Amino acid sequence: MQKQIEKKLLKKKSDNISDWYTDVILKAQLADYAPVKGCMVIRPYGYALWEAIQDFMNPLIKEKGVKNAYFPLFIPESFLNKEKEHVEGFSPHMAVVTYAGGEKLKENLVVRPTSETIMYEMYKKWTQSYRDFPILINQWCNIVRWEKRTYLFLRTSEFLWQEGHCAHITHEESQEVVLWALDMYKKTYQKLLSIYGIAGVKSEAEKFAGGDKTYTYEVLIPGGKALQGCTSHDLGQNFSKAFEWTILDNKGEETYPWQNSWGFSTRSIGALIMIHGDDQGVILPPQAADIQVIIVPIPGKEKAAAYSKKIYEKIKNEFRVEVDDRDGETAGFKFNKWEVKGVPVRIEIGDKEADSNTVTLARRDTGEKISVQMEQLNKILLDMLAQIQNDLLKRHQIFTEENTHKVNSYEEFKKIMVATRGFIYAHWCEDPKCEAVIKEETKASVRCLPLEAKEESGKCIYCGKPAKFRWLFAQSY
Amino acid sequence: MQKQIEKKLLKKKSDNISDWYTDVILKAQLADYAPVKGCMVIRPYGYALWEAIQDFMNPLIKEKGVKNAYFPLFIPESFLNKEKEHVEGFSPHMAVVTYAGGEKLKENLVVRPTSETIMYEMYKKWTQSYRDFPILINQWCNIVRWEKRTYLFLRTSEFLWQEGHCAHITHEESQEVVLWALDMYKKTYQKLLSIYGIAGVKSEAEKFAGGDKTYTYEVLIPGGKALQGCTSHDLGQNFSKAFEWTILDNKGEETYPWQNSWGFSTRSIGALIMIHGDDQGVILPPQAADIQVIIVPIPGKEKAAAYSKKIYEKIKNEFRVEVDDRDGETAGFKFNKWEVKGVPVRIEIGDKEADSNTVTLARRDTGEKISVQMEQLNKILLDMLAQIQNDLLKRHQIFTEENTHKVNSYEEFKKIMVATRGFIYAHWCEDPKCEAVIKEETKASVRCLPLEAKEESGKCIYCGKPAKFRWLFAQSY
Repeated sequence: MQKQIEKKLLKKKSDNISDWYTDVILKAQLADYAPVKGCMVIRPYGYALWEAIQDFMNPLIKEKGVKNAYFPLFIPESFLNKEKEHVEGFSPHMAVVTYAGGEKLKENLVVRPTSETIMYEMYKKWTQSYRDFPILINQWCNIVRWEKRTYLFLRTSEFLWQEGHCAHITHEESQEVVLWALDMYKKTYQKLLSIYGIAGVKSEAEKFAGGDKTYTYEVLIPGGKALQGCTSHDLGQNFSKAFEWTILDNKGEETYPWQNSWGFSTRSIGALIMIHGDDQGVILPPQAADIQVIIVPIPGKEKAAAYSKKIYEKIKNEFRVEVDDRDGETAGFKFNKWEVKGVPVRIEIGDKEADSNTVTLARRDTGEKISVQMEQLNKILLDMLAQIQNDLLKRHQIFTEENTHKVNSYEEFKKIMVATRGFIYAHWCEDPKCEAVIKEETKASVRCLPLEAKEESGKCIYCGKPAKFRWLFAQSY
Repeated sequence: MQKQIEKKLLKKKSDNISDWYTDVILKAQLADYAPVKGCMVIRPYGYALWEAIQDFMNPLIKEKGVKNAYFPLFIPESFLNKEKEHVEGFSPHMAVVTYAGGEKLKENLVVRPTSETIMYEMYKKWTQSYRDFPILINQWCNIVRWEKRTYLFLRTSEFLWQEGHCAHITHEESQEVVLWALDMYKKTYQKLLSIYGIAGVKSEAEKFAGGDKTYTYEVLIPGGKALQGCTSHDLGQNFSKAFEWTILDNKGEETYPWQNSWGFSTRSIGALIMIHGDDQGVILPPQAADIQVIIVPIPGKEKAAAYSKKIYEKIKNEFRVEVDDRDGETAGFKFNKWEVKGVPVRIEIGDKEADSNTVTLARRDTGEKISVQMEQLNKILLDMLAQIQNDLLKRHQIFTEENTHKVNSYEEFKKIMVATRGFIYAHWCEDPKCEAVIKEETKASVRCLPLEAKEESGKCIYCGKPAKFRWLFAQSY
């Protein structure tokens, strides 16, 4: 399954990040273009990253008492029409089934762009009183939102995600889950994917179509643009009202449930590739990598081949490791191949290593090589992988901080957005008109008000009126 | 989330199995009808069974070197047309997207009824020579096959499955994987779901549209009909030829790869419910059950409530256990609720138990109750759950054997199919014409030639011509 990956052909991240991004995804065999426009095939090496995300998140989801379920792919058009803002947000991106089983359908079916409407129709059916609450349900599924311009992982017409949908008797309980989900996403980004970011709340203009408040984890990517890493929505009672879903509270009064929804998608894999990679290829954080350690015996050396197997046996129970003893490729070719694929640590083995009971470890992120005694190998590998995991996060945090600016004038704001881009903290009066003009003139949108933001009086950089907070701005990817 | 489950309302399996089946699925909250005709919602309690199947199968799949991936939901209509038999088999069941992103599509997109065509188009792109083989890929996904008459889990317009698709240089290698997959399915049925069955090869008329040979695990369900539990297909070179997919073998000659595909779906959950359940509700095999043990403290007893928590702490690390300390329900109501839901073991706790440091265990499958000293609880529970797991399989094997007949005349065959149905072993000359008439006259189709069948000369029960084997016949569910 390995088509030849040739070093000379890999585009350079330092030349043009956009070209490099697509090129490295194809060459590292993470994904490929599908024959259907705008869709992608997630190849095994890329899908393993999604499985790592599922394995990280599922225990956290279950610990919270949220259970997985599965709701239908098809949503009757009339359902989506029930929440006005909701349908307006999604209708330009809908794929619609009009024929099925050889007949024209009486009502068109929309391939789910998100599942609020179909799920809440069922929730309504399943509940009568406060005793049936809370409802804590999540599903892992495919989603379709038709896109004109697509980009592997980051924007495709079909993608994979999880969507949590909970309902509660009180707003407080619902809000607690909204923030819990945001924190789970932050953990996934920081501990699994080594991606730094800013957690906060979206502006009214940028929030989810149909919700009251949207929380996000905003990630800065090379080139200085921001990527919305996930969302967690406080839906208030908007959907329960739209669905005329009332239940009896513990005083016997009719009330509308409070709801939230939260999602994390395969888009995160795009962020991972974009952020950590370099001119040599992808760099995978060890926790998420399908292969953490690749053993490359120098081809044609008999002792090295036998010794490699011994090393493999020694570490295979502790690490996700493979031996590349494929015929017909030079050592240099192999080194390069695994660099393109971003395996965190390479173990090089020649006869010299076999004779001296040592191995040479090469770190993918720094290129650093060290020689290690065999008896110390497991301990040193464990430390090295943890170190890489931390260093990648630290590196991205430093990159983010170095590209984060505090400005007090619109002139300065515009200058930065033309020159280097990046995150900008600036005062904003919270008037959507200012937000719209700033976006039009600078392409920078309000990304969020950070959770940790402290009140700091100032003047809106656009209109000069009083502003309570510095909001986070950036151009959106 | 628990709507009241009332015992008096549950239909009886012994009265009408079909009515009972739907009723118990709804009342046990395994699934519900979706607002879209023919589709279902898999509720958390039912989805946990699917997760148990995934958790059982995924390690076996990975151990074989097969990796998970994800291919697009949408398949261009022209792809399905490439293999003539294939498209004829699936076209009556297709759901078709004709509009997307607000525009009429130039080519209609079929929502995947199976993924052979889209996957093999990619395989062709990814490979040049024998060095790129074998290809070992699986995906877990949703599938759409529009059905006029549907039935929860057993036949729905959308369902979940895994589909493995491998490609090899030689037919032998491919055949080996076909049988490996069949064996994995047999293990899943027997060890996880406690379902007995007969593994064998399908007749030409009953095989997969586009394949050379189809293997199956045939399961007998109450009422004496057979359910096809899974399929594993030897696709020969049919698809590689249809896709004009050639590669270079190790002599530098052009050759077509040999392929196989194999699938196991949420239909298996329908078989599970149908086979093990009784008049009191569902019975879940302990290995697959989301809740293996339910602790029910007798309501209103203070000592019992405290003691229940102690018991929970004692066993929670070893078993999937919950305490039902919900207010406002009687003990009898609770016992009944968990019987409907099929939890394998119930622990009843009253003050008497608290005083004597004992618990009362009730087996769901037999109704048997025993009193156990607290210090022996974990050991006895472990044995009891293993016993239930085995007993359910044994019970189903006995049921199957008691309803399996060997007949030597068509008269006898017809008599059984009218009276009791069940499995029938009978000689058949392998002429599709006899098969077709038998099916028309008795509704019984050829289910398979068992893998273990030995040559046994005889006469075709229909035409009297020589027949080499006794084939397995039954009416299909």
